[in-house]
Amino acid sequence: MVLSPEQAAEIDRLRTETHQTLRPTVPALEELLFHPIPILDHGFVRVIDYMGDDGAVVQAARVSYGRGTKRVSEDKGLINYLIRHRHTTPFEMCEIKFHVKLPIFVARQWIRHRTANVNEYSARYSILDREFYLPAPENLAAQSDQNRQGRGEVLGGDEAARVLDLLREDAQRNYDHYLDMLNEGTDGKPADPGRSGLTRELARMNLTLNMYTQWYWKIDLHNLMHFIALRADPHAQFEIRVYADALSHVLDRWMPITAAACREHIIGGARLSATGLKLVKRLVKGEKVTQADSGLQPREWRELATLLGIDPA
Amino acid sequence: MVLSPEQAAEIDRLRTETHQTLRPTVPALEELLFHPIPILDHGFVRVIDYMGDDGAVVQAARVSYGRGTKRVSEDKGLINYLIRHRHTTPFEMCEIKFHVKLPIFVARQWIRHRTANVNEYSARYSILDREFYLPAPENLAAQSDQNRQGRGEVLGGDEAARVLDLLREDAQRNYDHYLDMLNEGTDGKPADPGRSGLTRELARMNLTLNMYTQWYWKIDLHNLMHFIALRADPHAQFEIRVYADALSHVLDRWMPITAAACREHIIGGARLSATGLKLVKRLVKGEKVTQADSGLQPREWRELATLLGIDPA
Amino acid sequence: MVLSPEQAAEIDRLRTETHQTLRPTVPALEELLFHPIPILDHGFVRVIDYMGDDGAVVQAARVSYGRGTKRVSEDKGLINYLIRHRHTTPFEMCEIKFHVKLPIFVARQWIRHRTANVNEYSARYSILDREFYLPAPENLAAQSDQNRQGRGEVLGGDEAARVLDLLREDAQRNYDHYLDMLNEGTDGKPADPGRSGLTRELARMNLTLNMYTQWYWKIDLHNLMHFIALRADPHAQFEIRVYADALSHVLDRWMPITAAACREHIIGGARLSATGLKLVKRLVKGEKVTQADSGLQPREWRELATLLGIDPA
Amino acid sequence: MVLSPEQAAEIDRLRTETHQTLRPTVPALEELLFHPIPILDHGFVRVIDYMGDDGAVVQAARVSYGRGTKRVSEDKGLINYLIRHRHTTPFEMCEIKFHVKLPIFVARQWIRHRTANVNEYSARYSILDREFYLPAPENLAAQSDQNRQGRGEVLGGDEAARVLDLLREDAQRNYDHYLDMLNEGTDGKPADPGRSGLTRELARMNLTLNMYTQWYWKIDLHNLMHFIALRADPHAQFEIRVYADALSHVLDRWMPITAAACREHIIGGARLSATGLKLVKRLVKGEKVTQADSGLQPREWRELATLLGIDPA
Repeated sequence: MVLSPEQAAEIDRLRTETHQTLRPTVPALEELLFHPIPILDHGFVRVIDYMGDDGAVVQAARVSYGRGTKRVSEDKGLINYLIRHRHTTPFEMCEIKFHVKLPIFVARQWIRHRTANVNEYSARYSILDREFYLPAPENLAAQSDQNRQGRGEVLGGDEAARVLDLLREDAQRNYDHYLDMLNEGTDGKPADPGRSGLTRELARMNLTLNMYTQWYWKIDLHNLMHFIALRADPHAQFEIRVYADALSHVLDRWMPITAAACREHIIGGARLSATGLKLVKRLVKGEKVTQADSGLQPREWRELATLLGIDPA
Repeated sequence: MVLSPEQAAEIDRLRTETHQTLRPTVPALEELLFHPIPILDHGFVRVIDYMGDDGAVVQAARVSYGRGTKRVSEDKGLINYLIRHRHTTPFEMCEIKFHVKLPIFVARQWIRHRTANVNEYSARYSILDREFYLPAPENLAAQSDQNRQGRGEVLGGDEAARVLDLLREDAQRNYDHYLDMLNEGTDGKPADPGRSGLTRELARMNLTLNMYTQWYWKIDLHNLMHFIALRADPHAQFEIRVYADALSHVLDRWMPITAAACREHIIGGARLSATGLKLVKRLVKGEKVTQADSGLQPREWRELATLLGIDPA
Repeated sequence: MVLSPEQAAEIDRLRTETHQTLRPTVPALEELLFHPIPILDHGFVRVIDYMGDDGAVVQAARVSYGRGTKRVSEDKGLINYLIRHRHTTPFEMCEIKFHVKLPIFVARQWIRHRTANVNEYSARYSILDREFYLPAPENLAAQSDQNRQGRGEVLGGDEAARVLDLLREDAQRNYDHYLDMLNEGTDGKPADPGRSGLTRELARMNLTLNMYTQWYWKIDLHNLMHFIALRADPHAQFEIRVYADALSHVLDRWMPITAAACREHIIGGARLSATGLKLVKRLVKGEKVTQADSGLQPREWRELATLLGIDPA
Repeated sequence: MVLSPEQAAEIDRLRTETHQTLRPTVPALEELLFHPIPILDHGFVRVIDYMGDDGAVVQAARVSYGRGTKRVSEDKGLINYLIRHRHTTPFEMCEIKFHVKLPIFVARQWIRHRTANVNEYSARYSILDREFYLPAPENLAAQSDQNRQGRGEVLGGDEAARVLDLLREDAQRNYDHYLDMLNEGTDGKPADPGRSGLTRELARMNLTLNMYTQWYWKIDLHNLMHFIALRADPHAQFEIRVYADALSHVLDRWMPITAAACREHIIGGARLSATGLKLVKRLVKGEKVTQADSGLQPREWRELATLLGIDPA
């Protein structure tokens, strides 16, 4: 279950409270507001609030350019221009706030993005729910031989079952012992009156890294695009990529023009190094290039060949 | 004139476009939305957009405290608790965006607050208007004898008139020469077809620091309170303090509970040093304390005596 | 064991490589450089590099004040003045870099300080060591009745032993299963050639939150003082407070004048609210004040009475 | 004159004070330490302090990768890998501190880079020197017809002379009036005892934007590279580009490996959009592409053609 009954009722209540506002409003995002987008086995992303729309980006850019740029009349053209030329400040003028439920080991990667605001559920103050992440069997991959950060083959049925048993049993046992050490009854009195409970801020250390936590997370549009570009990337771990994909889906609804420009110029395409650009110029002229005369290391050469769809040999 | 006719018409238009939203909405702030609050002779502050309300602060704090703190039932009590105990993250969950018009020398102080987003009108791209700040005569103060950052007596009538003449004439002449160097006619062609115009990015260097610039400025609630605390302070220069006062007025409308807590705990009151606290304890016990036995430097002692309303002698 | 033999040998080697420099250098900190300060059962803090000294703070402040302040001739007086008046930028001009080994649940609190730079050991790329935190028995406290974030009585001997057994056994078992799932032999081949190993980025989720991690952490002097003020505070959890105490010890060696000013003005002393200041003025005049006529909530009144050393009744 | 006699004497003194340190030290940068690199007519950049070297980047990266990556044995390869794959945190582990003297209109662009620390000479406290920027005649360009942010033809001799006269006379007159309004004699008494002086914080508003200011500016290596990439770019204004070029020269001395990787991967080369990449693949295959069937706007197509060295027609 993704939401508690209290949370579901709260969402229903919030979605009936309509207000009048003069602020920029995005109907396609209003439809989605407060609703959880399910992710993994117990996680979710839901939009709590937002500020701005595609027009707000244009408005902020027009302040900078002033009267001098009235000729750039089309919003789409201007937004693409801003992104292509790394004029990031107009995109910082919009904000969005999410409620996210995610495994702790994912949260530890996520929090490394510092240009955001976070309020996390604190296991120092409160007791965590019995919810932990177990991968679906098709996501139980072996370590890649080639790549230290990559996944290789999916584990076979028996091996996968064995791994899942270990993960499940260890998480459950550790959670049971967590509750046991806390010794808190539902009535606020000790569950076992014959002994003291360990303080919450210590008991939590027995939990496993696949336990779910949750937080409010607020970020501006520029940094949201940066987060998505890094975390929806094929090199990102699957378990954070599915969250980045959900954020990307929200971005499409919130800012259709900016989202398209982001796919065209930030997520899609590629960066060429100085040497890479020289090689592309030679290739475009019809010259033959080999790794030996490319000036690139073998690995860099293979990456470039893959990017351009040519034979590295 | 504070706004151009185009800007005034745009505000009228925006204020007729009401939208339906499920987001937290603050009617008292909606009333103020887009309207300029006049400041100094040509400046203003106006609210362009906002995200969140007092309830959003509470909501974010409750995520952190979780079920464990349902007992803290009153929003006002919780907000005061958060501010007193420096739990700043829930206040970062709200944002506000302003359009500000201000003299360049004020903008240079203002921009030092780095935790905000800015889009400034660029004199590299566009031509600045002929608007510069001239202090009202009652604000034309002499340098303080005591304090390098302070103002002393107000200048007498003749002296003030002389200063204002210098400021006005220099600003006007420099602006005229700026236009002359640009040599841009209203039709986009050279005003004087017999010569080239200097590029905008160079011509602007002839302008004086009292010229007005403008920007969009977005900041979260925590940093807004910090800005107000520093810049609405009596030690801040008058010309930035009037802007901070306007922001404080906006804060009252936007977040009445948080604004009151800010006055009680951040702007009002005072910080005691370790030595200062020891002395207060002695004074509260009825002991006599002098500078000589206080452990404080004379200046620190005078400041403490002033704070406590006692005779420093 | 705090350091691996390789790490200890590396430190010995580094401490023999002396260089000539024109940069500000602090002999008292050079003595400490690279040496680990042991913390908890397996953790440490060690200084890797630093930039600046007390004189660098003064030098930066003098740039701002320029020729106008040559009269402020004494460094100590200037540093105290800067801290008292919240002129924080000169303290941002110094940096220090630490290598820290700490339990993951402590790392999760620590990382919330965003104005620092971090490189953490990645369990996505590498295998974590079998090292986890077990509290000393005297630190195994019950939950406080009064305070959700506080500790109460220390657990009795039997109860403590039972808790420690649970923590130890669960951490060990989960670590063993982690290695089992990884199935990596020391020669890089599978330990059990009959099956595949789970990829590292997934296997790590089975680990407990008391496992040790490590990181390089770089921070400027202003933010270091802020970190220490928050985390060496009695309200902070013991397990992070011991790290903050070690940082404070380093600060004493690095910046003796700034460290003393920090204790006097940032860590020591207290903040009075607007109402609190009014009450102190009345108390200093010899007036009698009770909670009923104080304008404070009972809890705030008790806190103020405790601070001033008076009877709250 | 770039430095005052006091500053020059201070540098000579500092360069005689050698210290012993265990910290990473870069002899090529030590040679440059404190010496001003002259820029424009009165400006300079000089290195005041630094922390780290190429090896410190590698060391920080190795913490993240741990034992798992001992195979990446070569520092140069690792640094290039980190930059190509946007692993920016190891580059944040090094810092450098500059003293910069620059015209105010350049300072206003520069300060927009928020991830740095600044202490600026304050005209609120002190009196600015009579130093203002006058462009060399070959830099007096007309506004570009094509590009609002660009420069066109250089002004002819008479026109240039006329512009320089205006700039010089206005800056001088405004500075003279600034001193006149201040009315401060060298002995600290009024120059003209018959009248009061205007407070410094107001008098400064009469100065022009080409006056020189100065500041200490500290930045980490990652953000330094970002600053250089943006400001040493041909689209940046000449007057900030010359500063970025000086910073780039310093980077070469400080971090030869990182500087080369920065040129290869950050400054050099180019970014292809998603559509641009598709077109490059077609071109590399020998296909003919025209703007009409490119899917690009005419302006984007011309930019791509120029980048690849092909005929846009």
